[in-house]
Amino acid sequence: MKLAISGKGGAGKSTLAAALVLLMARRGRKVLAVDADPDANLAAALGIPAQEQEKIVPISRQAALIEERTGAKVKQYGQIFKLNPDVSGIADRFAYYHQGVALLVLGAVERGGGGCACPENVLMRALVTDLILYKDDALVMDMEAGVEHLGRATASGVDKMIIVIEPGQRAIDSTRRILRLAHDIGLHDIRLIANKITGPEDERFIREAFPKEAFLGVIPYREEFRRTDRDGCSVLDSLPDDVLHCFVDILNNLEAPP
Amino acid sequence: MKLAISGKGGAGKSTLAAALVLLMARRGRKVLAVDADPDANLAAALGIPAQEQEKIVPISRQAALIEERTGAKVKQYGQIFKLNPDVSGIADRFAYYHQGVALLVLGAVERGGGGCACPENVLMRALVTDLILYKDDALVMDMEAGVEHLGRATASGVDKMIIVIEPGQRAIDSTRRILRLAHDIGLHDIRLIANKITGPEDERFIREAFPKEAFLGVIPYREEFRRTDRDGCSVLDSLPDDVLHCFVDILNNLEAPP
Repeated sequence: MKLAISGKGGAGKSTLAAALVLLMARRGRKVLAVDADPDANLAAALGIPAQEQEKIVPISRQAALIEERTGAKVKQYGQIFKLNPDVSGIADRFAYYHQGVALLVLGAVERGGGGCACPENVLMRALVTDLILYKDDALVMDMEAGVEHLGRATASGVDKMIIVIEPGQRAIDSTRRILRLAHDIGLHDIRLIANKITGPEDERFIREAFPKEAFLGVIPYREEFRRTDRDGCSVLDSLPDDVLHCFVDILNNLEAPP
Repeated sequence: MKLAISGKGGAGKSTLAAALVLLMARRGRKVLAVDADPDANLAAALGIPAQEQEKIVPISRQAALIEERTGAKVKQYGQIFKLNPDVSGIADRFAYYHQGVALLVLGAVERGGGGCACPENVLMRALVTDLILYKDDALVMDMEAGVEHLGRATASGVDKMIIVIEPGQRAIDSTRRILRLAHDIGLHDIRLIANKITGPEDERFIREAFPKEAFLGVIPYREEFRRTDRDGCSVLDSLPDDVLHCFVDILNNLEAPP
């Protein structure tokens, strides 16, 4: 499965991405988690301690190093991955391991005024497209907030997309925009998650805006998410059983045969 | 005053931007509000009804029209603004008026796979840099979530930046990244807002991470923000007096002579 997780800023993309990859790893899947957001925080959501996070070398910097050594230009970056086309190959060379999850961080925007993240997005698109997944392997990309990654078609090589929605008109507007643009780049297996649900009114508000069959699951709002973020723990740490079961259900639905 | 509002996705940038420009307009300022996020929602935060929002022509589309008619290329887009260098000139030609606020929407990402938002960011940088402000005029830019706009130096022409922070380690990490990159592009007058504060612990958590003098104000968490978003009202609608006063205090601090 190649999955991209998208949504308005702050809707809960990294929280969902972290929960899913940690659960996949517990099930013995080989899982490559890709933080495709230049404002990267998937490592934090996975519970990697701050001083360990500093040791993660983003792909943008690894690629620059490779370019320096080999003279390969941006458009040839894909070659790097073609030499190591499966999850083990990519993970062994480029990823940081944590609780059975292989984490790749896109990086980019090292210096203010240094330019856009276009070259790195080309690199990411090549990785996602060229990566060969064996049965039970998974790639999960935590996308940048908003819609620009869809203009760049960074996620055009995935076979599924989840859009995370919080209860609010602005998040619903963003979701509609993402749906329209995702269709443009040929993504059709797109499912929705209603997140930060405080009660039936919240859930109804989101559900009324989209077709019933689009929903993959619902995640309640819990103070624990704020606390684990604050304490630098993984999103699954000290999560009440009922919320953990929401994530397990979502993963089961995701992995269910069509 | 030329002000950019930045922060992690979902921290509350558009809410603060909308509140400040509406209050500025009530004080009789000429104010140009710029939604520089391709996933635009400042119009919604200003309370512009959905069917009215559809009438707003984003700058990206206006520029394409101008290019078509005049043959001017991306790098010459700045010329458009040089012909109309003050707020009235820009606002009269390009903006949508609402409650005394002239709103410009960047737009971009019209089609999935259509490309990045780099040309539009060049356009925005030209606008911000070339715009001539008279005393009491203001430009307020609601930036894209995260850090990529800092790589592009879209806001390099502003004289102040506010970073909105919600209580959480990931939002604090994003803020540190933004601070570092903003310094790179020559922004030094950067102030912080602690948002979504539910109690003294939240406020302490954010304040401990940054120097005391950096803070411009604190905004409490209130259910009303969710409700106005949901009901399509402006962020100031039916806001309790104490929260309204927080925004007024922030504006007073912002406009206070140094």
